Amino acid sequence: MKFGKRVRALRRATGLSQEAFADSCGLDRTYIGGIERGERNVSLINIAKIAAALNVPAVDLFEFGDE
Amino acid sequence: MKFGKRVRALRRATGLSQEAFADSCGLDRTYIGGIERGERNVSLINIAKIAAALNVPAVDLFEFGDE
Repeated sequence: MKFGKRVRALRRATGLSQEAFADSCGLDRTYIGGIERGERNVSLINIAKIAAALNVPAVDLFEFGDE
Repeated sequence: MKFGKRVRALRRATGLSQEAFADSCGLDRTYIGGIERGERNVSLINIAKIAAALNVPAVDLFEFGDE
């Protein structure tokens, strides 16, 4: 899913590894990896954690640039 | 959570009742009610169903107008 690619792009833009980013989110590294591969059905609470760790509003995670 | 209020506003703008909207989403009416009250931790798959039923991109569901 596009959401995972968007998270990956934003996470890479911060310069953080998956592990450092996962720590910042308070989530597991393998879970972040699964999100970035589009394998996880992420819920609002974790969407909010990810957005907070990226210091962006949640809406930015859904800006896929093709809609 | 703001997400639920946003869903409610967009759903009401369509003129659909919770029940008719839930049918359109393929979800239960009580679940839609819970979402609109901010009581449900909605996941990406259901976010996508709701956006599709509203005929908007998912990003619109996160446009809270205060960020």
